[in-house]
Amino acid sequence: MRFASDNTSGAAPEIMAAVVKSNDGYDRSYGADAAMGRVTALVRKVFQAPQAVVHLVATGTAANALSIASHCPPWGAVFCHTHAHIAEDECGAPEFFSGAKLVLVPGDQGKMTPATLADALSRTGEGGVHGVQRGMLSLTNVTEAGTVYSPSEIKALTDLAKARGLPCHLDGARFANALVATGATPAEMTWQAGIDVLSLGGTKNGCLGVEGVVLFNPEKAWELELRRKRAGHLFSKNRFLAAQIEAYLTDGLWLRLAAQANAMGQRLASGLAAQGATVPDAPANMLFPLWSPGTHDRLEAAGAQFYRLFAPEGRERARLVTSWSTTAADVDAFLAALQP
Amino acid sequence: MRFASDNTSGAAPEIMAAVVKSNDGYDRSYGADAAMGRVTALVRKVFQAPQAVVHLVATGTAANALSIASHCPPWGAVFCHTHAHIAEDECGAPEFFSGAKLVLVPGDQGKMTPATLADALSRTGEGGVHGVQRGMLSLTNVTEAGTVYSPSEIKALTDLAKARGLPCHLDGARFANALVATGATPAEMTWQAGIDVLSLGGTKNGCLGVEGVVLFNPEKAWELELRRKRAGHLFSKNRFLAAQIEAYLTDGLWLRLAAQANAMGQRLASGLAAQGATVPDAPANMLFPLWSPGTHDRLEAAGAQFYRLFAPEGRERARLVTSWSTTAADVDAFLAALQP
Amino acid sequence: MRFASDNTSGAAPEIMAAVVKSNDGYDRSYGADAAMGRVTALVRKVFQAPQAVVHLVATGTAANALSIASHCPPWGAVFCHTHAHIAEDECGAPEFFSGAKLVLVPGDQGKMTPATLADALSRTGEGGVHGVQRGMLSLTNVTEAGTVYSPSEIKALTDLAKARGLPCHLDGARFANALVATGATPAEMTWQAGIDVLSLGGTKNGCLGVEGVVLFNPEKAWELELRRKRAGHLFSKNRFLAAQIEAYLTDGLWLRLAAQANAMGQRLASGLAAQGATVPDAPANMLFPLWSPGTHDRLEAAGAQFYRLFAPEGRERARLVTSWSTTAADVDAFLAALQP
Amino acid sequence: MRFASDNTSGAAPEIMAAVVKSNDGYDRSYGADAAMGRVTALVRKVFQAPQAVVHLVATGTAANALSIASHCPPWGAVFCHTHAHIAEDECGAPEFFSGAKLVLVPGDQGKMTPATLADALSRTGEGGVHGVQRGMLSLTNVTEAGTVYSPSEIKALTDLAKARGLPCHLDGARFANALVATGATPAEMTWQAGIDVLSLGGTKNGCLGVEGVVLFNPEKAWELELRRKRAGHLFSKNRFLAAQIEAYLTDGLWLRLAAQANAMGQRLASGLAAQGATVPDAPANMLFPLWSPGTHDRLEAAGAQFYRLFAPEGRERARLVTSWSTTAADVDAFLAALQP
Repeated sequence: MRFASDNTSGAAPEIMAAVVKSNDGYDRSYGADAAMGRVTALVRKVFQAPQAVVHLVATGTAANALSIASHCPPWGAVFCHTHAHIAEDECGAPEFFSGAKLVLVPGDQGKMTPATLADALSRTGEGGVHGVQRGMLSLTNVTEAGTVYSPSEIKALTDLAKARGLPCHLDGARFANALVATGATPAEMTWQAGIDVLSLGGTKNGCLGVEGVVLFNPEKAWELELRRKRAGHLFSKNRFLAAQIEAYLTDGLWLRLAAQANAMGQRLASGLAAQGATVPDAPANMLFPLWSPGTHDRLEAAGAQFYRLFAPEGRERARLVTSWSTTAADVDAFLAALQP
Repeated sequence: MRFASDNTSGAAPEIMAAVVKSNDGYDRSYGADAAMGRVTALVRKVFQAPQAVVHLVATGTAANALSIASHCPPWGAVFCHTHAHIAEDECGAPEFFSGAKLVLVPGDQGKMTPATLADALSRTGEGGVHGVQRGMLSLTNVTEAGTVYSPSEIKALTDLAKARGLPCHLDGARFANALVATGATPAEMTWQAGIDVLSLGGTKNGCLGVEGVVLFNPEKAWELELRRKRAGHLFSKNRFLAAQIEAYLTDGLWLRLAAQANAMGQRLASGLAAQGATVPDAPANMLFPLWSPGTHDRLEAAGAQFYRLFAPEGRERARLVTSWSTTAADVDAFLAALQP
Repeated sequence: MRFASDNTSGAAPEIMAAVVKSNDGYDRSYGADAAMGRVTALVRKVFQAPQAVVHLVATGTAANALSIASHCPPWGAVFCHTHAHIAEDECGAPEFFSGAKLVLVPGDQGKMTPATLADALSRTGEGGVHGVQRGMLSLTNVTEAGTVYSPSEIKALTDLAKARGLPCHLDGARFANALVATGATPAEMTWQAGIDVLSLGGTKNGCLGVEGVVLFNPEKAWELELRRKRAGHLFSKNRFLAAQIEAYLTDGLWLRLAAQANAMGQRLASGLAAQGATVPDAPANMLFPLWSPGTHDRLEAAGAQFYRLFAPEGRERARLVTSWSTTAADVDAFLAALQP
Repeated sequence: MRFASDNTSGAAPEIMAAVVKSNDGYDRSYGADAAMGRVTALVRKVFQAPQAVVHLVATGTAANALSIASHCPPWGAVFCHTHAHIAEDECGAPEFFSGAKLVLVPGDQGKMTPATLADALSRTGEGGVHGVQRGMLSLTNVTEAGTVYSPSEIKALTDLAKARGLPCHLDGARFANALVATGATPAEMTWQAGIDVLSLGGTKNGCLGVEGVVLFNPEKAWELELRRKRAGHLFSKNRFLAAQIEAYLTDGLWLRLAAQANAMGQRLASGLAAQGATVPDAPANMLFPLWSPGTHDRLEAAGAQFYRLFAPEGRERARLVTSWSTTAADVDAFLAALQP
């Protein structure tokens, strides 16, 4: 009953097998390894983007901070949701790497809207040299609230940014889960929807620790390499990152892993609703149910793991995350423990 | 005949096995995993330092830059050798993380001396507010020139720094090789010799990618954690870093791996000298031989891999690095290829 | 009818005379000038703070950014009002100098309240290493909305910060105007109310360009000097800054200048109200009146200068600022032009 | 006998008069003042550069650091002389503003040579992503050693930089003195010699505190404005900076002031040599004479002010600087005091 986070899961067997296999013999270091060329080819194929460039790092914070630093000047504003991971959970890494300032855009359930974004855009950079300038847009999909943007919703937001000449970033720590939840293709969710740079998550979805910075506009590729090195994020034994992402993207493994996580999320959501919990929109693998007081204690007493969140008076709220390794038995045990 | 770098080797079987084993089931994320507690205990035991704190990162550049940033203010000078890795091979990461300035201290064969350090110390920070202030000392062992500082040599340098009130860092990307080459204990080479913070290398010596920042002065521990997160170097699945370093430090594996690398380095040095090459002092696993023109081409034609370096007129110079996975057969094949 | 800003005024005659007089002969540079010693003594006397240290810079942004950088670590949160000058009008200077993150605290009419501050404090730094840590409090008096904190209001806010161990900064770009408006002494408004570091404004109140960073806790004095130099804010001919602030603080000139500005502000407020404009609380020299559509155009046609701001439907809003050089005739001319 | 530095002098009467005059009435703030437009026209005329843009700041460190930050990326190397002001006397401001790294280029008497620069260029940025990349060139004229580059010497150096695609900066803290010493025109010394951005010094040569950042390539103009604001270097009452530089550049005042300083420097040099002191090449207003032991004490006992520097065994070395306000009587009194 491990629902605290998808990063408490280990690596999928196929990923670990690829890492073990990649350990055979010598290989060139610092990204010149044999697998890295195959990774680039795979990314281009999967995203239908023949010019795309991908650089690997080991953490999502690194992927996000490097993506932002290479697309926003130090005097720029990064428009992101009030509760974006880059705003709340990266201890200032995006600002440290870029010098830029985050401008928080509100919106229900983790999603900004064209109206809230337009408002933030209109109120920033209008003071001439006195304030920071409009810099870039950063979206997250799956959002921190467990909701999902459709490609057309993303497009509506990037259109506003692009009308101001701003580049657009997608924090895809749970990108595969968003694809599965929407049925969109990788291309539809990214460059076809106006995304210039993607943090392609692997860690939460069955890898040991790997994220790709995918540049659909390759002119930033060399700058990104330099920033990666300068931030200590270039692996000498890059082969071990490449092996993970290669296996991840091969034969749809990433989508199968995400499909399992999402399916378990939906099974959980149904079961919760059936027992009377309030379950806000949660089409992927992250749920924020509200239930009655005492439930938290009862679940934990039964061995369940999850995060307790602030809740309105007279209610309790939890964060529950399923992963590639969650089983139906795990879900059902949790639901059984939920019963008073 | 892979002598380009010890980072072209893979992971030692024991390390990889530990990683595979650590993948079993769920574990807490962000360093709260079960193995991390064992790693701390191991580091304290191995270093005879009951108060030491260790934080893990995946690259040596991260370990160095974080060590420096947490011990030197933005207006401080970091005294390091002219050819230190932090000065030449990290694309400015130490300056990026800390804001500090590197003051280059000369010295033959990669080693500063008490005289050159004293000179640099006396010429820095004397201009009041106009120049950067003396900040900290950073040494490297094994040095970039393949030479080794003895504990007493380190002590002589840290004494000068400490007389100025400066903390002292050791870049130990090849720390185990230095221990083997000198016969010193980890404690003798570090805190007993005046070192406050160590970058404990694992990657080049048989790990997939892990380095420990070992703080002998634990009061910086929380700051270092925050800086690590802020730099994107906190792994969610830290268990995979902890598993590596745990196996590495258990039952002397790290020293056995380094002993093999060093033994192969010495076998290579002897063979080179026997064939008339000039081999500067190289007590560990990195050699910089000089030989006659045409040798580079002949060796590469035979399939040898190494770095070509600048050399005086009429000579060629190579960098040769052995590793835990170098075999006597590798060395002998190289020596055979060397023969005209 | 120049009401755009108090910084469109020139320097008061006494200040300019002091600058001219200070030009006589040679003087030591970089703050070792004769006047600087007198300035320190004056500041200590005026603030009844025998240990206080003051460093001079030429702009308010520099004073604020240096104050913050020397009291907040790069991973810290600076709690400030949503519309603070440091948040909206300094193009990210506080973040650039400090690395810190601004956490915006709401509140009506430019003032945070104990409740809004307590809420922000409780929601920051609770996520362990994932989010920025509570760093410091920064208040502004006179606020950006033209309102004024009393010493007891400041104390109520700094008490909350100090209960968390946080240092407290006061942006006093219009500090003299706040003193005049409240009748408080400099000591009552600062260290007696929990302020550790003050940006003591001179520029807007009759100087050419000078602000003092007043440290009531002198242990940061040397760090602040180094940060000032490193930011290019140490004047070689510091005598010209010292001369300004010396004249400014001598014989209560600063308070007389502010008294004139405030008196003209009150005359303006009364006249506006008498003509039916809505004039929110404005006890000092900055007013944000609301009036009926068409008024802006009519005033500008008459030669009045001011800022147009966003206003609710069916209204117009202006920013009007009086200064030491505003005369009753200026005010009356404006009021006359206001009449339909 | 004030020869410690040209910044111990006050402001020239014409400059001070202009400041006083500029205080009349109201003026627009933040650089929109009436004088600023005239300053731009003057700079364009004086430099025969119709596209040039100039931004004013109050210190040379600010001018240099902003010039560098707007022309060099954070991963770039700034090639400057080993003893450049930006390297030794600005407490790391260039690195703070830009993130870049200074690569020190040696050369006798404060001047790099095509050979030493070519060597530094060839040794930087060759390690791919591991080291910083070639970023820009920064020269100083008059140099820190009191020597002067001719326009053709500057051209020879900028040619090397431009062959690598690098922009070129000139630190002209004593630019007028260099013009007088060489007879070159402002255009010949700057853009015609390959300079893209100039720190145009005013402070040391008779201003209160003003320096111009002159961009011959105006495409960086907006970025420079933003960086200036973000660094706290935009004056609200910019009129007082503009008034200084306007008077300075009008009717050749700047050259007359520098001519006086240089003439006094030459009078001093001749007198020193006549008395047996060794006077290295010093064509402008800064001398580094060597004389016999005991001279320092004798001069100071007579009331002379100057800097004592390191000297070879058996000698003493001083730094002597003349300024616009140095008189023949000052020089002669010093020479009289020098006599044993």
